[in-house]
Amino acid sequence: MVTSRWTAAPAQTASPRRRGAVLERAILDAALEQLGTVGWKGLTMEGVAAGAQTGKAAVYRRWASKEDLVADALVSGLPRMEEAPDLGSVREDLLALCRQVRRIMYSLPGVALRSVIHECDHMQAERFEEVIIGNVVEPTIRLLREVIVRGIERGEVRSDAANGYVFDAVPAMMMYRSKMCASEWNDRDLEEMVDRLMLPLLRPYGA
Amino acid sequence: MVTSRWTAAPAQTASPRRRGAVLERAILDAALEQLGTVGWKGLTMEGVAAGAQTGKAAVYRRWASKEDLVADALVSGLPRMEEAPDLGSVREDLLALCRQVRRIMYSLPGVALRSVIHECDHMQAERFEEVIIGNVVEPTIRLLREVIVRGIERGEVRSDAANGYVFDAVPAMMMYRSKMCASEWNDRDLEEMVDRLMLPLLRPYGA
Repeated sequence: MVTSRWTAAPAQTASPRRRGAVLERAILDAALEQLGTVGWKGLTMEGVAAGAQTGKAAVYRRWASKEDLVADALVSGLPRMEEAPDLGSVREDLLALCRQVRRIMYSLPGVALRSVIHECDHMQAERFEEVIIGNVVEPTIRLLREVIVRGIERGEVRSDAANGYVFDAVPAMMMYRSKMCASEWNDRDLEEMVDRLMLPLLRPYGA
Repeated sequence: MVTSRWTAAPAQTASPRRRGAVLERAILDAALEQLGTVGWKGLTMEGVAAGAQTGKAAVYRRWASKEDLVADALVSGLPRMEEAPDLGSVREDLLALCRQVRRIMYSLPGVALRSVIHECDHMQAERFEEVIIGNVVEPTIRLLREVIVRGIERGEVRSDAANGYVFDAVPAMMMYRSKMCASEWNDRDLEEMVDRLMLPLLRPYGA
């Protein structure tokens, strides 16, 4: 049986009792639903409680503020980064990795996350930017490092390419062009970035 | 004598009459001053008029809205991009160009521009992002192209490097790291970016 800090709360309504993780999931789903329909500014703890068919107290017992609830809802809804691709060439690995990043950026929670950052104030925006860094950027950099180090071991990539400026190039370009050029990074765009930017950057000296 | 669409406005106060470009400059300066002290949300047309020691009507005669006024004030206050540097090597030219971009990003109007984008709503933010694109990004790309083409002519840069992915790498990295890592791009950071990212990317095939 699942035990948690709130399973001991006394029953207050006659509705079907959901506890622990089940109720939590229903609340997080209701928060994502509200973000998609009324946005950050329109979202209220009451509205989320109603959407999850529970009481406001059940929401506040778990999340002290709207920021806390929305941050958890976004994190829980974002697709996870998978393992580092290992397809035999740095080109194929980079393409597969870029497609993973794109899948997260354009997932419903990914789009909601960017729109929350636009809607909320500066202090709150910093909090949600940290969600992007911790859940998208840092995992991307970790997998890029794996892919590039494997390329170095294969002799496909110059030996000094495993550094922060090289790792940042992919997330920097994806963020920049989606923001400044409204690029949606179709397959052709990703291939062009890999072929015109990453492969010339990574090629061994003398190649 | 300077003539403009508003020099014919009848005198309404006893204060020293400033006309045309002089009064316009005083209003734009007052708007920048207000942005620095009370920010986008606190700025009002009345406050700007008071700061410029003129009437609200004189402000509204020139700018129909707060957005129009602030956009013009920011554009007029941003340092201009200079000519493309021509220092004899692609490394020195890139460093000089990056320092120009940094000077604009961290100028008072540059900082104010980013903070306005944080404070205002989504539709307004798009308008101010266009100010960044038109006044910082596009001029940067134009000069980068000149510097890279000159490097190709000298045989210092591979012949197929003059493309949009290569040009975008500098503004993408500068925007990304100033946002995600709060980097202020000191001289050492700029040198590292040029040496670890741009020169390996640009080197001729076989080098």
